[in-house]
Amino acid sequence: MNYQALFEQIKLKKSFLCVGLDTDEKKIPEHLLKEEDPIFEFNKAIVDATAHLVVAYKPNIAFYECKGAKGWLSLEKTVCYIKENYPEVFLIADAKRGDIGNTSKMYASAFLENMPFDSITVAPYMGEDSVTPFLSYKDKWVILLALTSNKGAFDFQFFQEGEQKLFEKVLEKSQEWGSQDNMMYVVGATKAEMLSDIRKIAPNHFLLVPGVGAQGGSLQEVAKYGMNDHCGLLVNSSRGIIYADSTPKFAEVAREKALELQEEMADLMDAKGIL
Amino acid sequence: MNYQALFEQIKLKKSFLCVGLDTDEKKIPEHLLKEEDPIFEFNKAIVDATAHLVVAYKPNIAFYECKGAKGWLSLEKTVCYIKENYPEVFLIADAKRGDIGNTSKMYASAFLENMPFDSITVAPYMGEDSVTPFLSYKDKWVILLALTSNKGAFDFQFFQEGEQKLFEKVLEKSQEWGSQDNMMYVVGATKAEMLSDIRKIAPNHFLLVPGVGAQGGSLQEVAKYGMNDHCGLLVNSSRGIIYADSTPKFAEVAREKALELQEEMADLMDAKGIL
Repeated sequence: MNYQALFEQIKLKKSFLCVGLDTDEKKIPEHLLKEEDPIFEFNKAIVDATAHLVVAYKPNIAFYECKGAKGWLSLEKTVCYIKENYPEVFLIADAKRGDIGNTSKMYASAFLENMPFDSITVAPYMGEDSVTPFLSYKDKWVILLALTSNKGAFDFQFFQEGEQKLFEKVLEKSQEWGSQDNMMYVVGATKAEMLSDIRKIAPNHFLLVPGVGAQGGSLQEVAKYGMNDHCGLLVNSSRGIIYADSTPKFAEVAREKALELQEEMADLMDAKGIL
Repeated sequence: MNYQALFEQIKLKKSFLCVGLDTDEKKIPEHLLKEEDPIFEFNKAIVDATAHLVVAYKPNIAFYECKGAKGWLSLEKTVCYIKENYPEVFLIADAKRGDIGNTSKMYASAFLENMPFDSITVAPYMGEDSVTPFLSYKDKWVILLALTSNKGAFDFQFFQEGEQKLFEKVLEKSQEWGSQDNMMYVVGATKAEMLSDIRKIAPNHFLLVPGVGAQGGSLQEVAKYGMNDHCGLLVNSSRGIIYADSTPKFAEVAREKALELQEEMADLMDAKGIL
């Protein structure tokens, strides 16, 4: 999916919501556990209930990998189901991969070739040749970690050379490797006011913002400091939507929670003059 | 496996060799392709031929992941085979994972709990809470990326605050989270003389050194600058051993290549007075 197509979807759905599929067998409604593939059945129900309200789904790969080959099959089934039934939705592999060139190439083929993901989150520590193999697929995206939403973000991401912090260096340097058409950045919502500094370095790129909801960020703040003329935001919510209810009505409640966020997003885009 | 047991193995085998299982169906001998699981059969043959010469095996997870669920099964079979038949060998998941706390916990369970790996390589960018979940297993290890062997290492790892480079900050800061008993560092061999600087910050930790062989490092240089009184080194070779020959004699040739390195390692340890 290219930049323009993604923006069209955002305008059409009046939403920049991404739903994180951090699907954990210990947390899904009990009645699903009798199914052959409870993880897939849960994801399918969540997707069917929310697809009209969201522009992206983001399976967190760790949650599947910890189930071994079986979890990998649940993941494959989930993303193929979404691509077949909702081809307009942007698919993010939240994998945080990154290795030397020939290894990153393998990871890229795992997610962008063998599975129909549109994008993958990538860790920047190993630099250019660990990132560029993911950029060699047409209309596919790298979503590079810049400023994350966790406490540990302060350990290295604010390391400072002269006036520049490490995450700013990542934002700057990586623009030599990709453009706003194939690279986005992960920027944590717990530091919403920092989005205005980030916008000075990357005014046009899409930003994937985790941490709204359970991780504590505010949607208004994110929009205030981070929204640009093409929206430029994908805001993720995982637990606040998918685990809002644990009864057989879980998907219906998930839809209500997604709808609340979508309506708030529509208002924010409207106020910005995007819709 | 704890520090002392690993050191005992090193002395017993007179070796600090790690063999990287970067197993690629396109590169393994053709006669194996008729097997049900060619990747596993290749690994099994390499392991049976070399286990007496090596202290560690390091499957590169990308090479399995790019085969989907089937690749994951080949990986599981490989590590279980090694653990059952050669329980004294140290197993490294070269996965370069790292995410917010509850996600890193899932990755830790995937590799250190559900599979019998002794250790996992971890990327430091997201800081403390992305690393510590991997440290909660007794006698299991984090191998943290410090200074990598690729060209891209120069993009961020040498970013400098005052007198300190980022990779030095990683070495220093991470010692607040783990000790020489549960943490090692990845240090690329293409910059062997830098090992003496690294030894000033981490004198006692084990260092996993990739990049000897195909990536161009010299074993003598690595030992000169990086070896300590407990050896303190695991030196990896992948392609130079496992793909040294592509005929049905591949395992035999792999053994010869591993033997050459092991004999060189024995001499280096002998010269240091370790054996």
